[in-house]
Amino acid sequence: MNSVNVPDIIVSRLPVYLRALQYMAINGSTTTSSQELGEKVGISAAQIRKDLSQFGEFGKQGTGYHIQFLTERLQQILKVDKVWDVVLVGMGELGHAILRYQGFSHRGFQIVACFDSDPAKVGTQVGPYTIGNVSDIADVVKNAGIKMAMLCVPATAAQPVTDKLVEAGIKGILNYAPVSLTVPNNVRVQYIDPVIGLQRMVYYMVGK
Amino acid sequence: MNSVNVPDIIVSRLPVYLRALQYMAINGSTTTSSQELGEKVGISAAQIRKDLSQFGEFGKQGTGYHIQFLTERLQQILKVDKVWDVVLVGMGELGHAILRYQGFSHRGFQIVACFDSDPAKVGTQVGPYTIGNVSDIADVVKNAGIKMAMLCVPATAAQPVTDKLVEAGIKGILNYAPVSLTVPNNVRVQYIDPVIGLQRMVYYMVGK
Repeated sequence: MNSVNVPDIIVSRLPVYLRALQYMAINGSTTTSSQELGEKVGISAAQIRKDLSQFGEFGKQGTGYHIQFLTERLQQILKVDKVWDVVLVGMGELGHAILRYQGFSHRGFQIVACFDSDPAKVGTQVGPYTIGNVSDIADVVKNAGIKMAMLCVPATAAQPVTDKLVEAGIKGILNYAPVSLTVPNNVRVQYIDPVIGLQRMVYYMVGK
Repeated sequence: MNSVNVPDIIVSRLPVYLRALQYMAINGSTTTSSQELGEKVGISAAQIRKDLSQFGEFGKQGTGYHIQFLTERLQQILKVDKVWDVVLVGMGELGHAILRYQGFSHRGFQIVACFDSDPAKVGTQVGPYTIGNVSDIADVVKNAGIKMAMLCVPATAAQPVTDKLVEAGIKGILNYAPVSLTVPNNVRVQYIDPVIGLQRMVYYMVGK
């Protein structure tokens, strides 16, 4: 169903639409329009219609979109109509915060194992998880066929751990370490670096 | 010095170049090329040369870029050649992790105050910070002329807190709450939502 020709930039906006639709549904709405959705996400109504038209017909002129239907279709398109297993590497303070975050499972992801290299942490319990040794990560990932990882290790450890993860079969890495990763073409990386976000804004600031 | 006509997409890549250059410098390099930089950040050498050419001449054919010079120029362009004050709102587990993160100050930012609405948290100490009452945030922001905020509150609180921040003069918000914010045209928002990052990758996954 997915077209291989859909540009990355369009794919990258779909999760933002999906999040807004799910939030509208929680707040009791059943229908919306490209105008309303556009105002919520800061993207023009025309762009939204164009993006969605890549995947079929979702709304009707004058009646707009049925939120539940569009939500389910976007979940199918994005392949989050099921729950993906994810491993978490690096159990510092951020790793702990992520592990306890409740917002993953209803949006398509669950952390199934977490790892650290610090002998003082390995074997200890965090909620329902026992922190595993990072040296065992390849076995766990391979045996369970896990495809996704979150990386919260220090910058210096990020590339070596990435190499291990890729070797073990990981195809998508959400990288919190403040460093760009080198991966093969068939592996995707998304970066989460708060400083990059801040730096992207101050360029536009006037004055102090 | 900044051209108002530089496209957002180019500006958004500059912090990524800057981070890679700083990392190279830490590892002892003094010069680089658009090829090498491109491999580090996953962007083509031609694109990097084109992006940088928007702001002047930085390298020489055959000798490449002097890392320290290009770093300083990018810091000036991005306005992170000084340190920006930032307030942090929402002192849950993520807020604590961010407050303790050591990676802000050498990249242009320092958290100067943190806030929560929970009476059990207000007035308590986290490292050198005393958690302030969110009801006092407008006064603190106005008095200190602070322009940047990080938002780690629950989704339901994000828009009301944003309205307060904007009213008080905040012009840039790094939003960790999993919801799109509505702000005036002169206010920038950058989003940090790990699930969006994960969803942007699974679209491309094959199989399980």
